Amino acid sequence: MQTLNVELGERSYPIFVGAGLLAQLDKLLDSFSGSQVAVFTNPTVRALYGDALLSALGQRQVDVFEMPDGEQYKSLATYQAAMDFLMHKRHNRTTTLLALGGGVVGDLTGFVAATFQRGVNFVQIPTTLLAQVDSSVGGKTAVNHPAGKNMIGAFYQPQAVFADIETLRTLPPREYAAGLAEVAKYGVIADAEFFDWLESNVDAVMQKDAAALEHMVHRSCEIKAEVVAADERETGVRAILNFGHTFGHALEKITQYKVLLHGEAVAVGMLIAADFSHALGLCGEDVQERLLALLPQLGLPTGVPEGVEPEAMRDAMGMDKKVVDGQVRFIVAQTMGHAQLIDEYPATALDTVLDKYC
Amino acid sequence: MQTLNVELGERSYPIFVGAGLLAQLDKLLDSFSGSQVAVFTNPTVRALYGDALLSALGQRQVDVFEMPDGEQYKSLATYQAAMDFLMHKRHNRTTTLLALGGGVVGDLTGFVAATFQRGVNFVQIPTTLLAQVDSSVGGKTAVNHPAGKNMIGAFYQPQAVFADIETLRTLPPREYAAGLAEVAKYGVIADAEFFDWLESNVDAVMQKDAAALEHMVHRSCEIKAEVVAADERETGVRAILNFGHTFGHALEKITQYKVLLHGEAVAVGMLIAADFSHALGLCGEDVQERLLALLPQLGLPTGVPEGVEPEAMRDAMGMDKKVVDGQVRFIVAQTMGHAQLIDEYPATALDTVLDKYC
Repeated sequence: MQTLNVELGERSYPIFVGAGLLAQLDKLLDSFSGSQVAVFTNPTVRALYGDALLSALGQRQVDVFEMPDGEQYKSLATYQAAMDFLMHKRHNRTTTLLALGGGVVGDLTGFVAATFQRGVNFVQIPTTLLAQVDSSVGGKTAVNHPAGKNMIGAFYQPQAVFADIETLRTLPPREYAAGLAEVAKYGVIADAEFFDWLESNVDAVMQKDAAALEHMVHRSCEIKAEVVAADERETGVRAILNFGHTFGHALEKITQYKVLLHGEAVAVGMLIAADFSHALGLCGEDVQERLLALLPQLGLPTGVPEGVEPEAMRDAMGMDKKVVDGQVRFIVAQTMGHAQLIDEYPATALDTVLDKYC
Repeated sequence: MQTLNVELGERSYPIFVGAGLLAQLDKLLDSFSGSQVAVFTNPTVRALYGDALLSALGQRQVDVFEMPDGEQYKSLATYQAAMDFLMHKRHNRTTTLLALGGGVVGDLTGFVAATFQRGVNFVQIPTTLLAQVDSSVGGKTAVNHPAGKNMIGAFYQPQAVFADIETLRTLPPREYAAGLAEVAKYGVIADAEFFDWLESNVDAVMQKDAAALEHMVHRSCEIKAEVVAADERETGVRAILNFGHTFGHALEKITQYKVLLHGEAVAVGMLIAADFSHALGLCGEDVQERLLALLPQLGLPTGVPEGVEPEAMRDAMGMDKKVVDGQVRFIVAQTMGHAQLIDEYPATALDTVLDKYC
């Protein structure tokens, strides 16, 4: 087991990464929860890990809120059902919400924790790679609005994150690959050496070698934790975590979240962003070429789904949260391991890149 | 105009108190809003002050969200309608929400501001006495759940508060009196001299003398700001602001929020709390006696509504947010100007007091 700390002053918290954490949860959880606990999960995850978790929770009052599996349930309707549940079960301000699942469960649980009685304790137990390396770290919580993803939410830090890499063994291959897109992203934006490591260890990563998993999850969390510590509320540098996401979100939105998983959209989005960066003369061709070589080995797509028009992309990006006073901002790659935010660029460069991919 | 500051580090903000602030808003607002503004209000307040506000907002993009007047609309349903409105009008992360109205408008708007795109700028323009001296200061935002008031919300500080005492002139007498209950509370819990001042200036206060209003609102905000600065998230001393509220909330709940205004319930709750404090030997009879003399002069009730049973009170208090691990905590008076939180007391003392009032 490895431990790292997200340094946020009084809101600092530890991330535990290792194999078999679920079994040790009773002891590990002691300093993060009181006698009342609500476990938030979905039927799929509950069937796999519910018993192990519940038996590890010992003498506490434990209530289980089960939400349906799927992004469409990361909604205000589920949020309201969760509030009804907590009120009905008489949870109070000292309760702790445990999110057992992927990003959907974690984001929704976090938003409920942020706002139930103006904020209660919150512990993340991410069971997907995407959640372990990305959504469980950094305090972004949210539900979706019909007109846009994550439009309703809060910055709210958990008390602790427990990333048990054993849970990655039951992940469907597509979901595992989707998580790897964010892992690759950390290399591009912050750590060229880590990108090298990924290229050299594709086999171990794809075979889910325990040591490779632990290193990969730990290093990804470390990078994210450093960026978050520097800019908790995304007023500056934190935006670089969105590399590939402006294009990616647009792709997800246009295809109505039915064609691409988030990580798959980010994979394609990173390629477009790298190409755009190159077109602006901000970055060599190497970032794009290395992504183009690596992503398929990780089981990720490299092309835009059929039928996506450039105009639809521009439209979809107009509603992106990164819009400031009408101007779409982009995260661009520099050399491998470095990225930056730009908000001025020739519109023609964007058009050329969109025309090329769509 | 007087200005005071709520000292909360990077979340500090000014409160402006004076006559005619609305007319000067354009200039005053400049440092607190960008080019996009959403005004949240209700039809009653809009009819009185909407035009003045809109004409003061100058060149900004201004959209008005009108919610129905009444506590029952401080709900998740209105919250969702507000989110739909902001998305539909394409408000982005740089928007500023202006709450023009009383506590219901302010609490709901604050919660929307706290959670729209994970937090946008928020300015309070309270138009009731209760909102000016209490709900607009301190960052408590919320909506109600059918099973309890303010059960869903966040701590979220505004960028600024503008308390225009001229708006108090159009307040119905009952609502004005309800605000005075919180004013009296500040004297009891934190400032014996201010309580003296209130007793000596009842006439000026009831006639809404401008100098009296400005002093009263300013000093109330000052006391609240000091307590909030010491304990933003109510983990300790801030709880003393709830003096009279545990009993008061129970009264409101039992009478289904139809009989007593919040301030009226707090007035009766303070009397019961003072009596309870005396029964526990923590406070002399003087606090209770002086409240009993002052409250009617301020237009406030001093008795529990008919039909409220002690058992119903105990039940209702069992769901209060101040419950920690099953034990109901109380704020008790000490000498005039001092209060404290207790969580141990003989159950019989509580029973005796409830039997006396109900």
